Amino acid sequence: MTQWIRFEHGGEKKFGTLEGDTIAVHEGDMFNQPKSTSESVALGDVNILTPTEPSKIVALWNNFYALGQKLNLDTPPEPLYFIKASTSSLAGGEQIRRPASFDGKVIFEGELGIVIGKKCSTVSEAEAGDYIFGYTCVNDVTAVELLNKDASFAQWTRAKSFDTFGVMGPVVATGLDPATLAIVSVLNGDERQNYPVSDMVFQPHRLVSLVSQDLTLLSGDVIACGTSVGVGSMKPGSTINITIEGIGTISNTFD
Amino acid sequence: MTQWIRFEHGGEKKFGTLEGDTIAVHEGDMFNQPKSTSESVALGDVNILTPTEPSKIVALWNNFYALGQKLNLDTPPEPLYFIKASTSSLAGGEQIRRPASFDGKVIFEGELGIVIGKKCSTVSEAEAGDYIFGYTCVNDVTAVELLNKDASFAQWTRAKSFDTFGVMGPVVATGLDPATLAIVSVLNGDERQNYPVSDMVFQPHRLVSLVSQDLTLLSGDVIACGTSVGVGSMKPGSTINITIEGIGTISNTFD
Repeated sequence: MTQWIRFEHGGEKKFGTLEGDTIAVHEGDMFNQPKSTSESVALGDVNILTPTEPSKIVALWNNFYALGQKLNLDTPPEPLYFIKASTSSLAGGEQIRRPASFDGKVIFEGELGIVIGKKCSTVSEAEAGDYIFGYTCVNDVTAVELLNKDASFAQWTRAKSFDTFGVMGPVVATGLDPATLAIVSVLNGDERQNYPVSDMVFQPHRLVSLVSQDLTLLSGDVIACGTSVGVGSMKPGSTINITIEGIGTISNTFD
Repeated sequence: MTQWIRFEHGGEKKFGTLEGDTIAVHEGDMFNQPKSTSESVALGDVNILTPTEPSKIVALWNNFYALGQKLNLDTPPEPLYFIKASTSSLAGGEQIRRPASFDGKVIFEGELGIVIGKKCSTVSEAEAGDYIFGYTCVNDVTAVELLNKDASFAQWTRAKSFDTFGVMGPVVATGLDPATLAIVSVLNGDERQNYPVSDMVFQPHRLVSLVSQDLTLLSGDVIACGTSVGVGSMKPGSTINITIEGIGTISNTFD
């Protein structure tokens, strides 16, 4: 397993592999034969960036049996998704900000994020693994009361696309078997979500295959796999951590 | 008024200003002090590209009084929008393709597209003009029966994000007053839409201001202003033209 990390150091954007508390700096294209260099830097000396700069973030709804059951939803016959603005991207350690125009509940949603490694269109489930670079933690932050504020038009994109609402990181881990993973969300020290990927309706390889039937996925694109039970609202000063074994913990404060 | 055009010529992507049937080639950043060169090429010798490569396409729903009235919708108090995948982008002259997974109606929607010229966040309506580079024609192609196929989740993004469904061009025109424009859609020689921008609920400058309260807009981003009455479905072999005076006509075939 390898953990790829993007960061800023000495005013430059760089990337490399994380080995303990040290980053082995690489150069070139992270997704296509990156080259190792002789440079290494201490994790503590860098400013961590989002692990990818996605051209798009495809985000799933109703993709876990447990949440569907709780909300009394039918299991969808095909993936239900929207796009979250790429400008919402936020790295670990940064502050999630309440939009000035919204005074309602802002909730966290811990999710598994699939990071695409190369351009893909209409790939089969069997081929999908070749196009997945790795996995990251996502916090799909949501201004929840906006979703159904307008009776005629559910505002999925807007509720989830405010600047700072697309939390992802701290690394992209390659070589993980997603089927064995669990997503854990901890709000102010209290575990609020802990659910297994095995409960996912459309598992990662199938999801990449199905979404790629509709639209071309590019290297660096992220598919946020949807959340399960236990989401909740954040208060000013809250700390929200999303943890997935093998990927690590992304920690942010709110407001 | 200036018409900016992106194109491929001799295997290279270039851009310039269109003057009659000739393109005056420029270099640098189209949105930031582009430099003229001594090169000019004939429009007939180039392959026209989309006039921008947007990081996102924000698309409006229910933004014209006439369509809202026809559909018996309340006038929205704030813009209702979704994001259309940037990978759906298609230039004039290219073919709109039916997705393999969808055998229902594929409709055209002629729209005015606002092209953002520089990064903008929380700008006022009075300032918005400084951030608008110009305007283009959009055909917001839609797999219409997908929208409400799932009773619990309206699939705006998916129905409108298939590859080739984001038609825009042929140019970005700067120095236009959008308030006086009309959008005309002609299917196989028959005029099907002809509606004025003046009927728009959220006019362009107000729209840029309001969307920028939610999310950061980047140079090259497109806001598709929504359509009005007269949309219709395309048949295999259909030719669909969207025309806006000062911008020109974007023409595509279907299937």
